Amino acid sequence: MQPSQSLRRGGEQSWWGSAPQYQYMPFEHCTSYGLPSENGALQHRLHRDAGLRANTRPTQIYGHYKQQFSDKEQDTGMSKKMGSSESMDSKDEDHYSKCQGCVRRLGHVVRRKLGEDWIFLVLLGLLMALVSWSMDYVSAKSLQAYKWSYYQMQPNLPLQYLVWVTFPLTLILFSAVFCHLISPQAVGSGIPEMKTILRGVILKEYLTLKAFVAKVVALTAGLGSGIPVGKEGPFVHIASICAAVLSKFMSMFCGVYETASGQLDLLVSACAVGVGCCFAAPVGGVLFSIEVTSTYFAVRNYWRGFFAATFSAFVFRVLAVWNKDAVTITALFRTNFRMDFPFDLQELPAFAIIGICCGFLGAVFVYLHRQVMLGVRKHKALSQFLAKHRLLYPGIVTFIIASFTFPPGIGQFMAGELMPREAISTLFDNNTWVKHVGDPESLGRSAVWIHPRVNVIIIIFLFFIMKFWMSIVATTMPIPCGGFMPVFVLGAAFGRLVGEIMAMLFPDGILFDDIIYKILPGGYAVIGAAALTGAVSHTVSTAVICFELTGQIAHILPMMVAVILANMVAQSLQPSLYDSIIQVKKLPYLPDLGWNQLSKFTIFVEDIMVRDVKFVSATCTYGELRTLLQTTTVKTLPLVDSKGYPAYVP
Amino acid sequence: MQPSQSLRRGGEQSWWGSAPQYQYMPFEHCTSYGLPSENGALQHRLHRDAGLRANTRPTQIYGHYKQQFSDKEQDTGMSKKMGSSESMDSKDEDHYSKCQGCVRRLGHVVRRKLGEDWIFLVLLGLLMALVSWSMDYVSAKSLQAYKWSYYQMQPNLPLQYLVWVTFPLTLILFSAVFCHLISPQAVGSGIPEMKTILRGVILKEYLTLKAFVAKVVALTAGLGSGIPVGKEGPFVHIASICAAVLSKFMSMFCGVYETASGQLDLLVSACAVGVGCCFAAPVGGVLFSIEVTSTYFAVRNYWRGFFAATFSAFVFRVLAVWNKDAVTITALFRTNFRMDFPFDLQELPAFAIIGICCGFLGAVFVYLHRQVMLGVRKHKALSQFLAKHRLLYPGIVTFIIASFTFPPGIGQFMAGELMPREAISTLFDNNTWVKHVGDPESLGRSAVWIHPRVNVIIIIFLFFIMKFWMSIVATTMPIPCGGFMPVFVLGAAFGRLVGEIMAMLFPDGILFDDIIYKILPGGYAVIGAAALTGAVSHTVSTAVICFELTGQIAHILPMMVAVILANMVAQSLQPSLYDSIIQVKKLPYLPDLGWNQLSKFTIFVEDIMVRDVKFVSATCTYGELRTLLQTTTVKTLPLVDSKGYPAYVP
Repeated sequence: MQPSQSLRRGGEQSWWGSAPQYQYMPFEHCTSYGLPSENGALQHRLHRDAGLRANTRPTQIYGHYKQQFSDKEQDTGMSKKMGSSESMDSKDEDHYSKCQGCVRRLGHVVRRKLGEDWIFLVLLGLLMALVSWSMDYVSAKSLQAYKWSYYQMQPNLPLQYLVWVTFPLTLILFSAVFCHLISPQAVGSGIPEMKTILRGVILKEYLTLKAFVAKVVALTAGLGSGIPVGKEGPFVHIASICAAVLSKFMSMFCGVYETASGQLDLLVSACAVGVGCCFAAPVGGVLFSIEVTSTYFAVRNYWRGFFAATFSAFVFRVLAVWNKDAVTITALFRTNFRMDFPFDLQELPAFAIIGICCGFLGAVFVYLHRQVMLGVRKHKALSQFLAKHRLLYPGIVTFIIASFTFPPGIGQFMAGELMPREAISTLFDNNTWVKHVGDPESLGRSAVWIHPRVNVIIIIFLFFIMKFWMSIVATTMPIPCGGFMPVFVLGAAFGRLVGEIMAMLFPDGILFDDIIYKILPGGYAVIGAAALTGAVSHTVSTAVICFELTGQIAHILPMMVAVILANMVAQSLQPSLYDSIIQVKKLPYLPDLGWNQLSKFTIFVEDIMVRDVKFVSATCTYGELRTLLQTTTVKTLPLVDSKGYPAYVP
Repeated sequence: MQPSQSLRRGGEQSWWGSAPQYQYMPFEHCTSYGLPSENGALQHRLHRDAGLRANTRPTQIYGHYKQQFSDKEQDTGMSKKMGSSESMDSKDEDHYSKCQGCVRRLGHVVRRKLGEDWIFLVLLGLLMALVSWSMDYVSAKSLQAYKWSYYQMQPNLPLQYLVWVTFPLTLILFSAVFCHLISPQAVGSGIPEMKTILRGVILKEYLTLKAFVAKVVALTAGLGSGIPVGKEGPFVHIASICAAVLSKFMSMFCGVYETASGQLDLLVSACAVGVGCCFAAPVGGVLFSIEVTSTYFAVRNYWRGFFAATFSAFVFRVLAVWNKDAVTITALFRTNFRMDFPFDLQELPAFAIIGICCGFLGAVFVYLHRQVMLGVRKHKALSQFLAKHRLLYPGIVTFIIASFTFPPGIGQFMAGELMPREAISTLFDNNTWVKHVGDPESLGRSAVWIHPRVNVIIIIFLFFIMKFWMSIVATTMPIPCGGFMPVFVLGAAFGRLVGEIMAMLFPDGILFDDIIYKILPGGYAVIGAAALTGAVSHTVSTAVICFELTGQIAHILPMMVAVILANMVAQSLQPSLYDSIIQVKKLPYLPDLGWNQLSKFTIFVEDIMVRDVKFVSATCTYGELRTLLQTTTVKTLPLVDSKGYPAYVP
C-alpha cells in the first residue's frame, strides 16, 4: 500500500476497486466530522472575532481559544445570531435597559444549562433507543410477514419456494439500491470507519443525515429479510451520526461541541450507545466500544458512555414492555439454566476446547472474509462487471442463501427455517436435544432442530458449516450489515454442538459428590457464542455482552477463560474482522500490538526504518536524477539540502 | 496546601500530623517503584553500556534505548552476568565453540519466552489468588474461633462480654503494632496511594516486600476481628507490591520490565488483579480499577488486566471448591431471586429513590470520614498525644465498637452478632422479613434480624445508623483497612430497609397483568449496595461487581439507573473517598472534572490564573525586596529577568 496511491480520489466505482473507499483528510483541515469545513460556523466566528478584537486585549494569544468558545463571546455571538439589535460597537451597550440585560442573562443561563453534557447524552440515548426499537419492530413485522406468506402457500411447493426466495431478494435489492442512491457511505459495518475516525482521520461525508437515512432504512430492510446480517456495526455508525448531528444542533448552546476534542469525546460515547441499545447491554456496549475503537481511552468518556448507554438500553427495554413484548424489563435472549450447579469443574476442559477451537474458527472466518473481498477485486474484469451491475452480486448471494435454506429442501437438514434471532433463542434452549425422545413438538420452537431420520448433531454441524460461508458471503454484500450477530449465531451453534456431543458422551451427567448433575448444552452454546465473537472481534467484552443478553451470569468464569483462550489463538493468527476490513478498504491504519506485546517494546525505529532512502539533493545532476527515476518505482522523492545525512527516518 | 510545604520530609510522627505521609520524588529520578534508584540495575547497565560502546556505532543517539534494552545487548549483558568467560573485546568471540553459541542462543530463547508478558500475568494471578484465599481462610477460622469462644462462655454474661471485647481488641492491637514495627506504609487503604503512583509520582518505600508482609499479616488480623474493615483497597496495594517485586524478578529475563512505562502498565493490571481476586469479580475488578486509578487508559492494559484478573479469580474459586467450601465455581454471595419477573416497572421509582438517597448518604460518609481525620489533626495536643500512644486510638475504637455490638446488650437491636460477610449474605436473603410469622429459626442465619418485641424495620434502621459511624471510625484506624466492604454492607442494609418498607406498604405485591408478583426486598438490598459503594467511590462499575458477587444479573437496568443517580448526586457534593484521603494525606493530587464536565471545557487558564504574581527581578532593589517579603507569606519567589511580563502563568 503506497501512501501516494491511498490519497487518490476514490471514484464512483470504488467499492470493488482497489482505491480507498473514502476520501480522508488530515485532522486540522476539518472542523466537524462529515460536515465540510467550509460550512463550519467555527471558522466564520474565528475570522469575525479575530477582526473584531485584534487590538482590544493584550492577552489575545493566551486567550486565543477563549476568543472563540468562551461563554462571554458565545453570548455576544448568540445574541447577534438571535436577531437582537445589538450592534458590534460596544459603546451601544449602555443604551440597553436593565430589563433586557436581565432577560439576556436568563437566556444565557438557560442556554448554558441546555448545552450541558447530560442533556446531550439523554437526547442521544432517547433517540437511539427509539431508532433501535422501531427498527426491531419493523424488521420483526417483516419477518412475520415473510413466514406468514410462506405458510400461506403451504400445499404448493414451487409457490412456497418462490415466496421463500423472492421476499429476501426484494428486500436486499431494495436495500442495495437505496444505499447506492442515497448514500454509498452507508454500506458495510461502520465499526472500521469509526475506528479510523477515532484515530483522528476525517472521513468525508461519513457522518451526514443522508447516511443516517440510508443506513436506517436499508438496515431495516436487510434485517427484515432473514439473511444473516448483523445490526451492531451499523448501529455504531448510526449512533455516531446522531451524535454528530446532535452536536451540531447543541453547538447553538455551548461552544464546546464545536471543538474537535469535544466531538471525539461525544463520538466515543455514541459508539457505546450504539452497541448498548442494540443489545440492551449497557456495560458490554461501553466495554466493546472501548476495545474495538480506542487505543487510549479517557476515563471521563467511560462515565458518559455508561450514562448514555444505560439510558438508551433502559428506554429500549421499556418500549418493549410498553409494546407488551415483555412483561417487565428482562434480557433480550433470557436463558433459564439451573443456578445452584451451573457446571462441574470436570467440564472445564470442554470449555477450554471450545475457546481454542473458536479462536481458530474466528481466524478462519476473518481470513475467508478478506479473501472473498480481495478475490473479487483481484479479477479486474469481474470487479468491473460487478461494479457496473451493482445489483447482481447481492442478488446472486441472496438467491443462493435463500435457496439453501428453503425448509422443504436442504433447509430441513440445517434448521433453515429459523431466522437469526430464533436460532439464538433455540440454541440457548434448556433441553438436551440428543436425549430427547417422543414428539419433537414438545420442544416448542426448537422442534425444527429434530429431524426424524437425521441425528441432531449432524443437523447442528450442517447448520454451522452452511451458516459459516453464508455469513461470510452475506457480510460482503454492498448493504449495511454487521458481522457480530451472524458470528454470534455461529458461535452458539458450535458451542451447542460441543455441548450435545458432551451430553451424548456422558448421558447421565458427571458424578460429583454422590449427586449427578446433567450437562447443560445451552450453557455451552452461550460460551461458544461469546468465544467466537470474541475471537473475530479480538475483544473480551463479548462475555459481558453475553451475560447481559442472556440475563445469567453463572457461567462467568469458564466463559471468561474460553473468551481469553479464543482471543489468544485468534490474535496470533489474524487481525480482527474490523482491522481486516480497514486494510481491505485501505483506510489509514495503525496496527495493534496484540495481546502479548510487552516484548515488542524492545523494537526500535532503527530496526524497521528504511536505510537506503532515495532522495534528490539540491546539488543533484540531471544524470543522477535520471538514473534515480529509472531505478525506483516510488512516485514521491524527498528533496534535501545536502547528501550529508544518509540515515533518514521515513 | 503550599507546594513548598508538601515537599518537606515527613517524619515518624506524620500519621496524625499535617505533613505528607510519604515522601515522593519526580518520576525521572527513579527507576523502579519503591525500589530505591541507587540499586536500580538499569543505571548500572546504562553507564556500562555507555562506556563500552560510546564510539563503536554512529547511530548511538537514535538507538539510545536499544543500547540498554534490546535483545542483542541483553544477550551480551546476560552472558556476562551468568559468569561466562566472555571478555569485553569482541575479537575473543571467535574462540567460542559452536556448541557454546548454540547453548547460549537456546538459553536466550528460553529466557525471552520466560520474560513474556503472559507468564508474568499468570504468576501474578496465581500468587494473588493464593494470598487472597489463604487470607480468607485464616480470617474465617479466626472468626469461627471468636464465635466459638463466645458461645463457650454461654451462661456467664460478664465472661461473654470479656471474650466479645478482648478478641477483636487483641487482633486490632496486634495489627496496629505489626504495621508500626514492620512497615508504616501498610496502614490504610492503598487505592489513594496507587492512584497517586499511577499519576506518575513515586512514593518511596511504598512497594516493598516489607510492606507486603505487614499488609498481609495485619489485614488478616483485622479481617479476623469482625470489626468493619474492608479487604479490597489493601488488596490493590498487595497486588501492586507483588507486581513490582515480580517485575524486578522478571527483569532478569526481559529488559522491558525495567522501563518506567512498562512498570506502570503492570501496576494497572495489578490493581485489576487486586480487586478481581478479592471478590472473584474479574470484569468488575478491571473496570473498578480503571475508574478508580486512571484518567487516561491504554486499552492494551485492559486486555492484560482481564487476563490476569480472570486467571486469579478462577484460581481463587477453584481453591474454594478444592477446600469443599463450594461444590462448584459459583459467586461469592450467591443470591437466588426469581428470574422470570425480577421486579415490576412500578417499582422503578423506589429504585430511583434508593439511588438518590445513596448519593446523599455516600457524600455524608465521605464528609464525615474526612472530618474525623481532620478533627483529630486539628487538635494539636490530641494528635501529639495519640501519635505518642499509638495503640490508644485503635484500642478505644475497637473497644467501643465491640461494646456496642455485644449481642446480649445493644447488639440485639442491631443484629450485632453478624460478622460483615454474614451480614451481606443475610441482607441478600430471599425472604421478606416484615411478613415473616412463626419461628424465626426457620429463616436460618437471618433469624438474628427478627427481634421478638421490636419491628424488623427498626432493627435494620438501627443497624444502618450504628454501622454507619462504626465504619467511618473503623476505617480511620492505623491498620490496613479498606472502605469498600463496610460501605457495601451499609448500602445493602439501606436497600433492604427500603425493600422491607415497600413490602410493608404493598404486602400483596403489585398487581400487573392480573398476576401478582411479591416484592423482593433482597433485590433492593443488592441495588442499595451497588448504589452506595458507587456513590462513595464515584464509580459505576460497582454494579458489575455486584452482579459478579451475587451471580445474578436480572436487576441490571434498575441497578445501573440507581448507581448513576447516586453518582450524579455524590459527585456534585463531595470528592470520592479516595480523593478525599489523597487530600487529607496531602499527596499530590489532580482534581477530576466530574461527571458533567463538558461545560468546563470553556474554562481557560486566563480564568483561574494568578494575575498579581509576586516576583523578584534581577534589577530589584533591597527596599523593594524587603517590602515584598513583608507583604507576602509565600516562601518561594520566582526570579525573573525583567519586569516586562506582568502576566505569568503559575
